[in-house]
Amino acid sequence: MIPVRRFKENPLITPKDIVPSTPGVRVLGAFNPGAFVWNYEMCMLVRVSEAPIPPDPDTVIAPYFDFSSGERQLKSWTFSRKDPAYDFSDTRLVKSRDRTWITSASHLRIARSKDGIHFKVDDKPTLWPANEYENLGIEDPRVVYLEDRYLITFSAISRDHGVCSNLVTTQDWKTFEHRGVLFVPDNKDICIFPARVKDRYIALHRPSTSMLGMPNLWIAESDDLVHWGRHECLLKVRPGQWDSARVGCGPAPILTDEGWLAFYHGSDNTNYYMGAVLLDRDNPYRVIARSEDPIFQPVELYEKEGFFANVVFCNGLIESWGGRVFLYYGAADMCCAGVEVKVKDVLDDLLKR
Amino acid sequence: MIPVRRFKENPLITPKDIVPSTPGVRVLGAFNPGAFVWNYEMCMLVRVSEAPIPPDPDTVIAPYFDFSSGERQLKSWTFSRKDPAYDFSDTRLVKSRDRTWITSASHLRIARSKDGIHFKVDDKPTLWPANEYENLGIEDPRVVYLEDRYLITFSAISRDHGVCSNLVTTQDWKTFEHRGVLFVPDNKDICIFPARVKDRYIALHRPSTSMLGMPNLWIAESDDLVHWGRHECLLKVRPGQWDSARVGCGPAPILTDEGWLAFYHGSDNTNYYMGAVLLDRDNPYRVIARSEDPIFQPVELYEKEGFFANVVFCNGLIESWGGRVFLYYGAADMCCAGVEVKVKDVLDDLLKR
Repeated sequence: MIPVRRFKENPLITPKDIVPSTPGVRVLGAFNPGAFVWNYEMCMLVRVSEAPIPPDPDTVIAPYFDFSSGERQLKSWTFSRKDPAYDFSDTRLVKSRDRTWITSASHLRIARSKDGIHFKVDDKPTLWPANEYENLGIEDPRVVYLEDRYLITFSAISRDHGVCSNLVTTQDWKTFEHRGVLFVPDNKDICIFPARVKDRYIALHRPSTSMLGMPNLWIAESDDLVHWGRHECLLKVRPGQWDSARVGCGPAPILTDEGWLAFYHGSDNTNYYMGAVLLDRDNPYRVIARSEDPIFQPVELYEKEGFFANVVFCNGLIESWGGRVFLYYGAADMCCAGVEVKVKDVLDDLLKR
Repeated sequence: MIPVRRFKENPLITPKDIVPSTPGVRVLGAFNPGAFVWNYEMCMLVRVSEAPIPPDPDTVIAPYFDFSSGERQLKSWTFSRKDPAYDFSDTRLVKSRDRTWITSASHLRIARSKDGIHFKVDDKPTLWPANEYENLGIEDPRVVYLEDRYLITFSAISRDHGVCSNLVTTQDWKTFEHRGVLFVPDNKDICIFPARVKDRYIALHRPSTSMLGMPNLWIAESDDLVHWGRHECLLKVRPGQWDSARVGCGPAPILTDEGWLAFYHGSDNTNYYMGAVLLDRDNPYRVIARSEDPIFQPVELYEKEGFFANVVFCNGLIESWGGRVFLYYGAADMCCAGVEVKVKDVLDDLLKR
């Protein structure tokens, strides 16, 4: 077992800490944060999920953004829980026989701290859904600093297009350049390495399939961050293990003496867990080692109960001192929390030293 | 109505014309051909679907290729039609509650002709499934000649990875270079333009989604045919029309005086139809016009009955004389057939001239 120290201040951010973006809307979750250092502060880029406040408990509202006027307008579909044509059993979704709606829409918002533990969340969204590829929200950002700018990759959710992986870049966290769709639907959980490997940019990403195949983790390369190729499956789900049902990357990998260390999430359909994989320094298409057991998993109440229960989902990492990293994660699709681990402990476990 | 002349020799190729690739296997379909000119002959690259011969009518066999030994080995799963755990209602599939199998596996095979009508099919496969991304077969090729070589793009079907779009190139139709996965799962129906546009290669492709979104047609660009980006949705399904349920490209577009003319297929869940779209010559991301009505649709018996009924699916085109094109298509997922149309008639219809 790897020593994993949960911050005693967990959860670090809860929905109560968030000022709603829009009148008449409530915050359902503040979770799955990316993380980065900016202006001498340790920051999270938090996924804030919101929905219009329903008039009564029997009403479920599924929000979306309409860009047809040229401006972003919040609109919604309304459902009654008493209507037998709809299935409300998954809190995140409304399902009919042939269609699905999402019960919240997410934007991204900065939370700032001096110590990595006590965060103050901005009053206003940092990044809004901006186009029809994002009209049901933007989710689960990974932030990495690469060659004079921050790269923000995230899942873009769309009613017409499903889920794709988009890139936005910024140098000042005020102006943002939208670089479009990097990986086409359905695709999520994309992180870009913090440095080129043999002159090429590298990304991890997770295509999803419908009829055949499993949600495996893939790797790709690029010369310019826009055009991606040489796609290969890097990690498959492992039947019977903690990552049997799905795998996807965590935050951007970090370079260690032993190679690229990438934390990743796995699910067995009962829990979401965090593990790690070690990739060759010069050829990250080669897996050196992979966690037999999870590094951490839902244990605390805030991880076992929430909007979607039994989830730890880490997509934020900040390197600390003394060979430690802070891992920021979403707990039960509701809160932000953090743990500290020693890189050496993770490498020792991976390399069975 | 655009005048569309079906070849009176249709169907041009049927399963009876195909020598099975392997002892103990039967040919279920010879359909969805790509088309090209090679060595003074008009050729089709035919999708040949095969399955092991079942011992009795109650048995259904789903074949796959095993590459674990380093060699390609044909293996299969066997099902009884009497087993209530499985659904056999779609002839192409066997479904359980949580898994799907495919009742045939496809390879690609050349058929040669002097006149574009009377074809002789090679006795042996031209292109076999070659790796784990293709272990349930390779399907629906598009062939285009571009800068001294033929590009063959096709759907790669995999039990682990779903459906992705792969590229193989050849200069002599004897040796083939496998260029890997261009678009990650689920993705199919990929064609590459026969010339660069403003120095960039252009492709059409069709991501598929699971929970949200529709099977729309996308466009992408590349500098090197390997790394692709600037993905945008080009054509959406149109509710209430013939292409309401899915759209996907046909053969590689052809350059006309009015722009790039791309034939594409659409389905309304009752039939597969063929229509066309006209794209800007200098900016194929811009749609100039799109068929209101199908150009042709299943009418003949060989189109209305077969392995999967009511399908015309064109992914092969050869330019003929006098402004005509031959369109080669799969009829009912079983046979190859052809029609002749005048490009001017299609353009007049698109531009309402």
